[in-house]
Amino acid sequence: MPENFADRLLAAIKAKGSPVCVGLDPVFENLPPAVRRGDEPGQRLAAIGEFCRGVLEAVAPIVPAVKPQSAYFEVYRGEGVKLYFDLVRYARQLGLLIIGDVKRNDIGSTAAAYARAHLAGPDAPDCVTVNGYLGADGIEPFLKVAAAEGRGAFVLVRTSNPSAARTQDFADAEGVKYYQRMAEQVAELGASVVGACGYSSLGAVVGATYPQEARMLRGVMPQQVFLVPGYGAQGATAADCAASFKADGTGAIVNASRSVLYPKQDPQFAGDSWRAAVTAAAKAFAADIASAVTPGA
Amino acid sequence: MPENFADRLLAAIKAKGSPVCVGLDPVFENLPPAVRRGDEPGQRLAAIGEFCRGVLEAVAPIVPAVKPQSAYFEVYRGEGVKLYFDLVRYARQLGLLIIGDVKRNDIGSTAAAYARAHLAGPDAPDCVTVNGYLGADGIEPFLKVAAAEGRGAFVLVRTSNPSAARTQDFADAEGVKYYQRMAEQVAELGASVVGACGYSSLGAVVGATYPQEARMLRGVMPQQVFLVPGYGAQGATAADCAASFKADGTGAIVNASRSVLYPKQDPQFAGDSWRAAVTAAAKAFAADIASAVTPGA
Repeated sequence: MPENFADRLLAAIKAKGSPVCVGLDPVFENLPPAVRRGDEPGQRLAAIGEFCRGVLEAVAPIVPAVKPQSAYFEVYRGEGVKLYFDLVRYARQLGLLIIGDVKRNDIGSTAAAYARAHLAGPDAPDCVTVNGYLGADGIEPFLKVAAAEGRGAFVLVRTSNPSAARTQDFADAEGVKYYQRMAEQVAELGASVVGACGYSSLGAVVGATYPQEARMLRGVMPQQVFLVPGYGAQGATAADCAASFKADGTGAIVNASRSVLYPKQDPQFAGDSWRAAVTAAAKAFAADIASAVTPGA
Repeated sequence: MPENFADRLLAAIKAKGSPVCVGLDPVFENLPPAVRRGDEPGQRLAAIGEFCRGVLEAVAPIVPAVKPQSAYFEVYRGEGVKLYFDLVRYARQLGLLIIGDVKRNDIGSTAAAYARAHLAGPDAPDCVTVNGYLGADGIEPFLKVAAAEGRGAFVLVRTSNPSAARTQDFADAEGVKYYQRMAEQVAELGASVVGACGYSSLGAVVGATYPQEARMLRGVMPQQVFLVPGYGAQGATAADCAASFKADGTGAIVNASRSVLYPKQDPQFAGDSWRAAVTAAAKAFAADIASAVTPGA
């Protein structure tokens, strides 16, 4: 039986002393000039590869996990997907956990195929994000592969974007909102894969931009680790992120992407080389979150 | 300005005389022995390629569109994704429209990257499926690329699986269900890309397994073409599918995958070669749907 994913995640967070992950959202136009060789698709992809490997090396001593965003690799079709999995393998060599941000969703044999594609084998991420709109039929196939491989999944419960309110805040006659129902379902489905740490390998995505909702959801899903997007470029502060943690400082991992990947836009990093700037931005991010969530700090 | 996707789709349906599409859900274990060479990943993928090209050739004279399911290609990582786009190009050469069943979803720049990855350029599908749980922020980037490229998108409104009921039937104080709110949002967003035919390039996925709901949704989304899964292997009949059409026989396209791809399991096709069996199954499928939806037939 492989080790439970939630146990591995909590151990990695503890080892690095920081409940954060860095998102890999590589956009060619934003890359530092030092990695750019030319404008052909192959050259763009090579630059993205060099940049991402540099980011992984820069953040590996600081953060427990990284979150590559599949969309930015899929832009380059088959070659981009190959690079995505090459980077997963490289991140693992560097001792990082990998959260594949793919937001896949389907039912039955198709969901099982997605789960195999993104969670099985030595070059697959440790966990993936899943969209739960299709209900339990769409989540269980991921859970099955995750359990067999010692891996996990995070189901979208409350996303960090402005229009999330219109679709997810829809309330029933008792005032219970749609995303709460989604949270109840995640709590129920995740009960079968709880590790020794008390958390489940089935977690939840809960945006930092809605801290009140996060506080309520913390109660609905006591066994779920929250993957928390929205810090930095999307406007949430470390104090907003703290709403997703329990009083003991466990229970969530906060993501930042653009604010760590492209810190040159911040004048305080202007003098550094891009690798040093990424290192500094990752350290500042980790320290900011740690100061807001560490008990007694 | 490229031609409106809804206009192209309706013209293709009219030309073939049949509002159906065939799903490409290639699973190695189900392939006819004639295309299998061996069990290595490369050999499996080669068999899938040969099978899919054969299916495209067999169905091109009969149906207006095909729907490759990305999950079954992603199982083979970068090489599988390359084959997916190769098949899109081949289907286009054969005069077929292509519905990329990818169910992608994200927000802002990430959704824009998915839209570019799956809807832009000569080897991208004519339209894709999109999961709308993230709201308008997650749909508009697809709509923007679709409009610029003369392409389209289908948003999941009511899926065909059993557990759809738990997440999508959630009702508010007025008894309005969650999937109706999703339908209203799709109708609103799609109003900007309506073609000369009166339908929008933003369509809706509405499962055939819930015909009463489909009838109601037909009223909520008068300008949406419905992409209708659930026929055949999932249990819906042609009469169930008819609920998604208007009285004039327009407004929907019905998908079948397994029942057309693997008809050998049906004893009436046992004597045929697999290509002939696929042709016969596609013809039977098209005739069954046409008989249920053609006005006055």
